[in-house]
Amino acid sequence: MNLTLKRRHLLAGTAMAMGAMASGRLYAQEITEVERDLPEYVAFKQPDALIIHSNNTIETRRDAFGSALVTPEDKLYVRNNVNPPPASILDDRDSWEVSIEGVGAPGSLTLGELKQMGIESVTMVLQCSGNGRAYFDHETSGTQWQVGAAGNVMWTGVPLRTVVEMLGGADGAARFVTGTGGEEFPEGAEVRDVIVERSVPIEALDTILLAWELNGEPISLAHGGPLRMIVPGYTGVNNVKYVKRIALTEAESDAAIQQSRYRLNPVGEESGPEWPSVWEMNVKSWINQPLADRAAGPVVITGVAFGGINAVEKVEVSLDGGQSWQEAVFVGPDLGQYAWRTFAMPTELTPGQYTIVSRATDSQGNAQPEVPEANDAGYNHNGWRGPAVEIVVS
Amino acid sequence: MNLTLKRRHLLAGTAMAMGAMASGRLYAQEITEVERDLPEYVAFKQPDALIIHSNNTIETRRDAFGSALVTPEDKLYVRNNVNPPPASILDDRDSWEVSIEGVGAPGSLTLGELKQMGIESVTMVLQCSGNGRAYFDHETSGTQWQVGAAGNVMWTGVPLRTVVEMLGGADGAARFVTGTGGEEFPEGAEVRDVIVERSVPIEALDTILLAWELNGEPISLAHGGPLRMIVPGYTGVNNVKYVKRIALTEAESDAAIQQSRYRLNPVGEESGPEWPSVWEMNVKSWINQPLADRAAGPVVITGVAFGGINAVEKVEVSLDGGQSWQEAVFVGPDLGQYAWRTFAMPTELTPGQYTIVSRATDSQGNAQPEVPEANDAGYNHNGWRGPAVEIVVS
Repeated sequence: MNLTLKRRHLLAGTAMAMGAMASGRLYAQEITEVERDLPEYVAFKQPDALIIHSNNTIETRRDAFGSALVTPEDKLYVRNNVNPPPASILDDRDSWEVSIEGVGAPGSLTLGELKQMGIESVTMVLQCSGNGRAYFDHETSGTQWQVGAAGNVMWTGVPLRTVVEMLGGADGAARFVTGTGGEEFPEGAEVRDVIVERSVPIEALDTILLAWELNGEPISLAHGGPLRMIVPGYTGVNNVKYVKRIALTEAESDAAIQQSRYRLNPVGEESGPEWPSVWEMNVKSWINQPLADRAAGPVVITGVAFGGINAVEKVEVSLDGGQSWQEAVFVGPDLGQYAWRTFAMPTELTPGQYTIVSRATDSQGNAQPEVPEANDAGYNHNGWRGPAVEIVVS
Repeated sequence: MNLTLKRRHLLAGTAMAMGAMASGRLYAQEITEVERDLPEYVAFKQPDALIIHSNNTIETRRDAFGSALVTPEDKLYVRNNVNPPPASILDDRDSWEVSIEGVGAPGSLTLGELKQMGIESVTMVLQCSGNGRAYFDHETSGTQWQVGAAGNVMWTGVPLRTVVEMLGGADGAARFVTGTGGEEFPEGAEVRDVIVERSVPIEALDTILLAWELNGEPISLAHGGPLRMIVPGYTGVNNVKYVKRIALTEAESDAAIQQSRYRLNPVGEESGPEWPSVWEMNVKSWINQPLADRAAGPVVITGVAFGGINAVEKVEVSLDGGQSWQEAVFVGPDLGQYAWRTFAMPTELTPGQYTIVSRATDSQGNAQPEVPEANDAGYNHNGWRGPAVEIVVS
């Protein structure tokens, strides 16, 4: 299908959206405005900062990112594969139990015990595997995320490596770290079809945290409290919420979410374990301001850039849709390899039409493509053309 | 006066506090618990995380710091010298005006204009000049802050240096940067006696921000929004809230807050401009956990350390009141020279009495003293003995 049809599909006929289409402009504020109330478990969030796709899929509005180095939790996107467990699991956080398997001395640990084993903190981009799906040209059935299914957040917890060593070390045959979420299912449910259980390569054991704090506060239910498995540099789904079991395993989980979902099968091919899993994130960036038509004059163009599994090295900005590029500067402290960096380029805009885009390069020399290779479900979009900002300066 | 009397003065006779005294223990949770409601302008804060000394003096509870690298705004201390202006000054943030004087082309700029001139972000310890006053032995009349009149926060704004250069550069004779707050006073008030107008040395021009964002959100009224002058490494009072005028001046402000307050006169001497002003912060640290008696077993001792005007280089922990020391490790990313670092020391506590203290050293080799030299009003306390945690492990 062509781009026009794809856009029509997205727009779903709201007057505002049709206006945006007529003017030929496409950016976050204009295409998926949905009037809906925030569900109870995320009632603490700022409704004005969010696009509510559904109860379990809520995106940060592009104009709400501002120039924040760290994304406040009340603006952070929400994506749950299934409904969260009851809020009562937070009543006594320290008694939450997680079983650790595939180690010399397997057993259960409470969160209270984990807190006395060690502490580390990582700032990282938390990003839904499907962020940017709206920018793929082919038809996809998942949530049509634009840029806002991502945020830069600080997690604090104990390194899984520390816990594993205190329990006698990893099983020598282990090739994966498998985390199981604590969601609850009605009797009779086909649990392996719905359970949130993800496996990541054993190499991630060096960076995984069992985290109890997000941005300096106990983790909310919406974001996986009381305990979440954090895998820096990996897409959101791999960061298992309400984690109740960690196993170092020889094989990947047999759950559907691992075997037949979150796979990078080509467009039209059926998903399955023979295709690569959605794991590491790739290099990416986008502009957050300006987003709207404006008067001529000085402007500070800002956005965010990150390298995913690698550090981000540089970011360039183009005002003419990619014909010419200028390097932007990073703002504030470097929060580490897995974090995003806010970038800025002060300039002067004269009257005219602009197509503002950004292109990041990571520490391994990988640059964002103009348009990424497609995959059937629309994961890992990192093209620089998709989130272009088209504005008129008068 | 002796320490016992000083403590009695602090404790003001609550049963809980007297109990703490009787057991010989002194730490945040036990000595200044005051039952009071949060005033309206800080109603968004977490009451359980705070000690309310008065409407304009509110301290973070020591057990509320947790292991946060950045202090959430809803736990951050509040200290206003006078009542804040009406909340209506936030109705249209971008129209807030600040006049810039002592430059080639003086004039007024709106916040909307400042936002298009440049952007930078600094993470820094915001700390009241009087933080730790409760630990001085002599009698002082100001708020008896313990450790909690401090937080580590991220500010975003435009470098003042950028603004000054765009306005023709600094007056060659300028020796100070003087900021004036936008508080309002009733007719007939002796404005020079009450106005919040502070001068800092011109060298600070290289780091000052005119900031509109705190931790990624527009600055609240409680913390100086819509615009605050941020002077990294300087105590709280120098970071002028609701800033409406910045002047590069040859002399310090003639306001009382500059001339006769916030001066480091010795105990018993009258304050005045002949004594050093309270400007740069010094090296400091304290323990945040554990704070209470506990059972024997593993524990991760944590706290925060910062260098003030310098970066912090290392921090040591003692379990025996300073007889022996071990170096702790820093947790998470280094947020820059002016930020604090969370530190940790995992250990195993056997039954007994412990006096847990920490001692930081900055990049210039300055270490915290056991007890700092006193000054009359009780500013800049940075001794390691004062905030000692005395616990029994059984």
